[in-house]
Amino acid sequence: MNYKIMCRFLSLVCLAEAVFMLPALAISIYDGQVKAILGFAITICTAVALYIALKLLSRNNESRMTAREGFVCTAASWILMSLIGSLPFVISREIPSFIDALFEIVSGFTTTGASILADVEALSRGMLYWRSFSHWVGGMGVLVFLLALSPSGKKNEGFTMHLFRAESPGPEVGKLVPKLRQTALYLYGTYLALSLLDFTFLIMGDMNWFEALCTMFGTAGTGGFGIKADSLASYSPYIQNVTTVFMLLFGVNFSCYYLILLGQFRSVIRDEELRLYFCIVALSIGLITWNIAGMYDTLGEGLRHAAFQVASIISTSGFSSVDFDLWPTFSKGILTILMITGACAGSTCGGMKCARVLLLFKGLRRNIRQMVRPNRVEVVRVNGRAVDEKVMTGLNGYLSAYMLILFLSFAVICIDGFSIGTNVSAVLACFNNIGPGFEAVGPMMNFGNFGILSKLVLIFDMLAGRLEIFPILLFFAPGSWRKN
Amino acid sequence: MNYKIMCRFLSLVCLAEAVFMLPALAISIYDGQVKAILGFAITICTAVALYIALKLLSRNNESRMTAREGFVCTAASWILMSLIGSLPFVISREIPSFIDALFEIVSGFTTTGASILADVEALSRGMLYWRSFSHWVGGMGVLVFLLALSPSGKKNEGFTMHLFRAESPGPEVGKLVPKLRQTALYLYGTYLALSLLDFTFLIMGDMNWFEALCTMFGTAGTGGFGIKADSLASYSPYIQNVTTVFMLLFGVNFSCYYLILLGQFRSVIRDEELRLYFCIVALSIGLITWNIAGMYDTLGEGLRHAAFQVASIISTSGFSSVDFDLWPTFSKGILTILMITGACAGSTCGGMKCARVLLLFKGLRRNIRQMVRPNRVEVVRVNGRAVDEKVMTGLNGYLSAYMLILFLSFAVICIDGFSIGTNVSAVLACFNNIGPGFEAVGPMMNFGNFGILSKLVLIFDMLAGRLEIFPILLFFAPGSWRKN
Repeated sequence: MNYKIMCRFLSLVCLAEAVFMLPALAISIYDGQVKAILGFAITICTAVALYIALKLLSRNNESRMTAREGFVCTAASWILMSLIGSLPFVISREIPSFIDALFEIVSGFTTTGASILADVEALSRGMLYWRSFSHWVGGMGVLVFLLALSPSGKKNEGFTMHLFRAESPGPEVGKLVPKLRQTALYLYGTYLALSLLDFTFLIMGDMNWFEALCTMFGTAGTGGFGIKADSLASYSPYIQNVTTVFMLLFGVNFSCYYLILLGQFRSVIRDEELRLYFCIVALSIGLITWNIAGMYDTLGEGLRHAAFQVASIISTSGFSSVDFDLWPTFSKGILTILMITGACAGSTCGGMKCARVLLLFKGLRRNIRQMVRPNRVEVVRVNGRAVDEKVMTGLNGYLSAYMLILFLSFAVICIDGFSIGTNVSAVLACFNNIGPGFEAVGPMMNFGNFGILSKLVLIFDMLAGRLEIFPILLFFAPGSWRKN
Repeated sequence: MNYKIMCRFLSLVCLAEAVFMLPALAISIYDGQVKAILGFAITICTAVALYIALKLLSRNNESRMTAREGFVCTAASWILMSLIGSLPFVISREIPSFIDALFEIVSGFTTTGASILADVEALSRGMLYWRSFSHWVGGMGVLVFLLALSPSGKKNEGFTMHLFRAESPGPEVGKLVPKLRQTALYLYGTYLALSLLDFTFLIMGDMNWFEALCTMFGTAGTGGFGIKADSLASYSPYIQNVTTVFMLLFGVNFSCYYLILLGQFRSVIRDEELRLYFCIVALSIGLITWNIAGMYDTLGEGLRHAAFQVASIISTSGFSSVDFDLWPTFSKGILTILMITGACAGSTCGGMKCARVLLLFKGLRRNIRQMVRPNRVEVVRVNGRAVDEKVMTGLNGYLSAYMLILFLSFAVICIDGFSIGTNVSAVLACFNNIGPGFEAVGPMMNFGNFGILSKLVLIFDMLAGRLEIFPILLFFAPGSWRKN
């Protein structure tokens, strides 16, 4: 392990986090919340001090890095970011328990949106802002952004790719343009533009700027932290519909927007992952609307709630417009499947991603075909192009790790004695970065009643889910820390 | 597809089933149950007629067969066997609904032990015998047995291997001795000897010969059909303990017994799968005993129930000595994990098998190691020997098929509106051939309340689970049925 280069990243993360916290500090000062001001001020000072210390440690680093180091550095950055990010809650005593505060901010950065708070409206506005903003930071990932913007960006081109791979969701990561830095800048540009659009639409509804900002952060990062106890249930149908549309849009692979900008509509329409995504969305909305029709006055209302919840779960946001835990099991079953699939690779969403589901189905079809005709060589194709066998092998590794973590986490959190349905959905909701599950962790409930061990496991699951398992596994593998 | 060779297998299956039904007919005649006599007699006549018809169709077949045909023939044989096996229930009107009767007998042959009967004690003894005997037939698989015994056994040596692979559980299938026929005879010999031993121990307890026989069938096949409504709860601790030990013994890879006969104790003790199996068993019993200690008068009683349930679930039998659905969630969580792992490959049990779990963990460790040191070639080793990469690829194919079937089945059966916990455990219990799940399909409940669609899905799951997915998928793949 090249410790100097790791210190360099960690120092950047500290600095960025100090900067990110300034608006929250400003809001707290404006509101005159003394404890919150203290919380943010002390944290910012700590972060800056850490920045200086790490900066000194990282002098004379060479700009070379292996893929493994990229993975470990990414995991370390996210963990440090979470540790620092939890401090304001603890210092201000708004979330006195450190584990709870850590759970809350990891849930924020990983865009999960699972909360331990029984009464979210009791938080000060500064804390609410920080909590929601963490979604926006975590949505697109922060490391590549920092490196792309930093003055030595050009020099870093080589190893930034490793970080890009580690931080971006999906089975395959490709550059849109030859230079990674430009790819990153374009991606963040799209992210910013879509966020602003969402904000504008929300402001045009009945939201004030603070509500609109926090809701936009949650939507864009597909996080799902609300600032009200009932999430989005008390807002107007207009706000709910706008959020539905934007949750779905943020679930689309961002490279599709790039292709649209280039005028290549045909390749967007023919994209197999996008088609699968919208097919799943349409089918799920149809089935759930039919299933819950009797529960609402009009078909339109049922459709609105079905569409909102489907968009919220498949994009792994986790907002809710109704208490969907009261829906019939068939609807909950569909939502459970959506929890696992997630939306498209290269978006801000969590879960397995439609691209992986597509590859899984195609891989299975290939297996069966090869059994039928053992002498023919079959290649898996997506969008007409052959998929590299390495991607298929990687997919299988991901899948076995996914299953093992899922089942082990489930076994451990059972110790707290909640029902099987609660525990299954809690693990799925955290590991796939969704937020609410069913029963005792349903949309109107929270994760606060779990014990410390379970919370630690779920924190691990959220991080593993966001970074797609291997960075976080490598972080804990002793071999990763050896000298090169 | 070579239809002539398929007809030959199917004819053998019909004949065997007619012979297997004779004891049940005899019991019904002894008891003077007219309807049951009719049910068995008509079915036996039908089976014999089918045998003759298929025998005529299969004249002049060549003794060559591809692996694919082996898979499809195996699936077809099991499906035909189930269709014929369900007839006595329907004809005698003891289970009037055809779907229910099919569910019951598929559950029997696949050694699942899930029942649709609300009151099992209402069945006549002939039917109870047939139901339990189907476990014993299904446990070791019937095709290889038939071929090994048939006069042309020597001639068939070549393609019997394909059937052996299709019907035997586990990621790898090896012959113990060079000749497959001898391997098969040895395996069935062990099966018979262990069954007789179990029967003797049960008779020495407070059971009559009929109870002992049916319980032995359920234990040996790791099936779990009881002949009493409360499974084994009302029997003495002695009977329960004997059954615990034999359930565990039938979960051991049968080749271990062969090695013991050869005096190679060392290789048995060092077998990694066996070690993993007994470690999981010991750990689970310990944790559950600790968890449920307060629920029973003495620690010994808690230990007995914990051991019984752990043995029952990991061997995928599904007997119960108490209503474990009343246990704390932690214990139920452990049992859920055991449902998935199952016992050893090459035994009569279902589930994923410890061998696969071992390979999954080792495969994941290799993945991580290769990320840490990308330039080193890592080989997965079990018992000191390198595992063929084809086995690893096959494992991955199995895993993705396993997950897809699991989640799709779950989504479909949710339509009946049971709780999430019920549906998850129902699919796990059927797909892994266990039997009882939790909540509405708990050990004191039954599967009778599911709708027809759900029952069909669960029937598919049981067959897919018993034949390890691919034979049954190939059976439904259109390409399999083409002419060579």
